[in-house]
Amino acid sequence: MSKINEHKTFDDLPLPDTDAIVSSNARIVNRDCPDPRLKFLTDTLVRHLHDYVRETNLTTAEWISSLRRFSPRSLTLGHSRQEFILLSDVLGVSALVDALNHPKVGDSTESTVLGPFFTEDAPEVNIGGAIASEGKGSPMYVHGRVLDTSGKPIPGATIETWETDDTGHYDTQYENRGEPDCRGRLKSADDGTYAFRGVVPVAYPIPGDGPVGKLIAKLGRHNMRPAHLHLMVTAEGFEPLITSFYPSGDQYITSDAVFGVKKSLVVDLKTVKSAEEARAKGFPPSFGDEFALLERDIVLASVEESKAAREKLQKTEAAEKARQVSNI
Amino acid sequence: MSKINEHKTFDDLPLPDTDAIVSSNARIVNRDCPDPRLKFLTDTLVRHLHDYVRETNLTTAEWISSLRRFSPRSLTLGHSRQEFILLSDVLGVSALVDALNHPKVGDSTESTVLGPFFTEDAPEVNIGGAIASEGKGSPMYVHGRVLDTSGKPIPGATIETWETDDTGHYDTQYENRGEPDCRGRLKSADDGTYAFRGVVPVAYPIPGDGPVGKLIAKLGRHNMRPAHLHLMVTAEGFEPLITSFYPSGDQYITSDAVFGVKKSLVVDLKTVKSAEEARAKGFPPSFGDEFALLERDIVLASVEESKAAREKLQKTEAAEKARQVSNI
Repeated sequence: MSKINEHKTFDDLPLPDTDAIVSSNARIVNRDCPDPRLKFLTDTLVRHLHDYVRETNLTTAEWISSLRRFSPRSLTLGHSRQEFILLSDVLGVSALVDALNHPKVGDSTESTVLGPFFTEDAPEVNIGGAIASEGKGSPMYVHGRVLDTSGKPIPGATIETWETDDTGHYDTQYENRGEPDCRGRLKSADDGTYAFRGVVPVAYPIPGDGPVGKLIAKLGRHNMRPAHLHLMVTAEGFEPLITSFYPSGDQYITSDAVFGVKKSLVVDLKTVKSAEEARAKGFPPSFGDEFALLERDIVLASVEESKAAREKLQKTEAAEKARQVSNI
Repeated sequence: MSKINEHKTFDDLPLPDTDAIVSSNARIVNRDCPDPRLKFLTDTLVRHLHDYVRETNLTTAEWISSLRRFSPRSLTLGHSRQEFILLSDVLGVSALVDALNHPKVGDSTESTVLGPFFTEDAPEVNIGGAIASEGKGSPMYVHGRVLDTSGKPIPGATIETWETDDTGHYDTQYENRGEPDCRGRLKSADDGTYAFRGVVPVAYPIPGDGPVGKLIAKLGRHNMRPAHLHLMVTAEGFEPLITSFYPSGDQYITSDAVFGVKKSLVVDLKTVKSAEEARAKGFPPSFGDEFALLERDIVLASVEESKAAREKLQKTEAAEKARQVSNI
C-alpha cells in the first residue's frame, strides 16, 4: 500500500543509543540529498528543532499535545496516520524527545518512539493467548517476566503490544479494518510472567505517498523501518515504558527511518521446530510445527528512579551547553 | 463568526518597519502570557523560527510551498482558512519572510503579509468600477496611479484587491458564499491610473476558535487585525507587490495580531459629503451622498532593483551576524 523509496542504508552510523547520537544521525542521514538547497534547509531545520527540544527540555506530553493540536489526520489516504508525527519521526525529533525524557536507569528496558500505529482498542488476551489471527504470518511466541530494577517481579503490569502482519502492515492500514488484529493487551502474572502468541514482524516502509514520504525521497533516504514488536508497559508506581524489540539481522537496523533502534532493544529470535513445543505453547496444528521464540524480560524503572535520571541528564546537558558557550 | 480575544494593545511598540523590529515585536507581544512555561516555549519557538528564516534566507516561495505542503484546510470550520498560515502569521514568521524578501526600494510602496483570504476568482472590473455590492458597508473610493520608482506611469498593471465588509468578514468566511464580493481585479490605464469603488474596511478578529486562536488567547494576546484594504499588483518587469493600506486611527494599528502594519502603509481617509461627487464617482443614489476617499499612488520596484535590495540586505544581515558572534 505504501511505496518504498530506493534503499540506501547507513551501516557506518552508530545506533542512536544517546540523545547526542540521535541528533548527529538525524543530520548525517540527509548527507546524500542531491538538491543542495533542500539539504541546507533540512539540515538547518533539524539543527534548530533539536536545539529547541534541548533548550526547553520539552516533555513527551508537551510534544505530543503540540503535534495533536496541529495534526489533522492525513487527507491523502483514508487511514489514521498523522503526517506531523511522521515528520517529527523522520527528522529525529520524536527520538530526541524520547531520549531526553527517558534516559536509561540501571538495567531497565530502554524506551523508543511510539510511532503512529498504537490504538486504544487492542483486545484483552490471557497469558499465552493469541494477539494475531491465523494466516497473519510466521508464528512467534513472546515471553519473559516484568521486573523492577532490583529483579523483583511486578505482578499485574499491563502490557499492550502491536505489530505488523507478514506483509508489513498494521491492521489500521487496511481500508476495511474490522476487528483489531496483531495487537493485544494482557496482564503479567503474580511471578511477573507475560507471554503471548503473535507473528514474526517484518520491515516496512513508512507511508511514502504523503508529504513526508515525498520529502525523504527527495532527501535521498529510504523510508524503511526494520521489523519490530511494539510494547507499552504500565504498572502502578513505575514509569510507563514505550518500547519495541527489534529482531536482529534486519538490513534496516542501522538506518531506521525514524531513529528508533537502540542496541539493547535488538533481540535474537530462536527457531523452535517441534510439534510438541508448538502445541504446548498453544499454536493449533494449522499454524504448523515451527515457531520463532522471543525471550526477553521487561525491566521497569520506578517513577522516582526515572525522575532522578531525567534531572541528572538535564544537568549534564546544561553543563555541556555552558561548556560549549565558554569555548566559543 | 470568530470570537474576539480580550483586547490588549501594545501602544509602546514601534511599527514593524524592518525585519529586526518584526522579530523583536514577535517576542515582546507574548510578554503578558500568564503561563510561564507556555511563555518560555513560545518565546524559544519564535526565536528559533526567526533564526531559521534568517540563516536560510528563506524565500517567500519556499515558505509558502512548505506551509501548503503541510497545511490541510482547517477541520474545525467549513471555510478555507489554513491554520498553518495563521500560525506563521501570529508568530511573526510571515512578516519576517516578507521583510527579508522585500526590502524597501527607494520610494516604492512597501509590501506586507498576504494573509489567508486571497482567492483567484476575483471578478474583473473596469477602472472606477465597483468591487463591493450594495449593503456591504460605507462607500469608499480608492484611486491613484501605478508608477515606477522614477515616477513614470505603468500602464496595464494588474491590481487585485480584497477587503472585509462592514461586519469584518471576507466573502469566503460566509458558509454559503455565492459570487465573490468585496474583491476585484482591474488594469491600470495608460497614464497609470487605477480606481475602484469599495467599502471602508473594518478591524476584525483572525479566527479565534481554531488551534491558533486558542494559542494566542492563552498567550494573553488579542486576535484583532486593524482595518485594511489588500492589494496585489503585478506588471511585466516589476517585482510583484503584495501589500495593504491601513486607514489611520484604528485602535489595533500598533498591535496587529500578524505584524502587518508599516508606517508607510497607514493612509488617511478623507470624507467627501457631496451628492454630485458621489454620482461623479459612480456611486448610485442608493449608496448615499457621502463616501470615504483613499488616494494613494502605488510605486513598483523593478525586478532588478528589488533583487539588488534583497542582496544588500542579506549581506547586511550576514555582517551583523558575524559581528554578534565576534562579540560573544
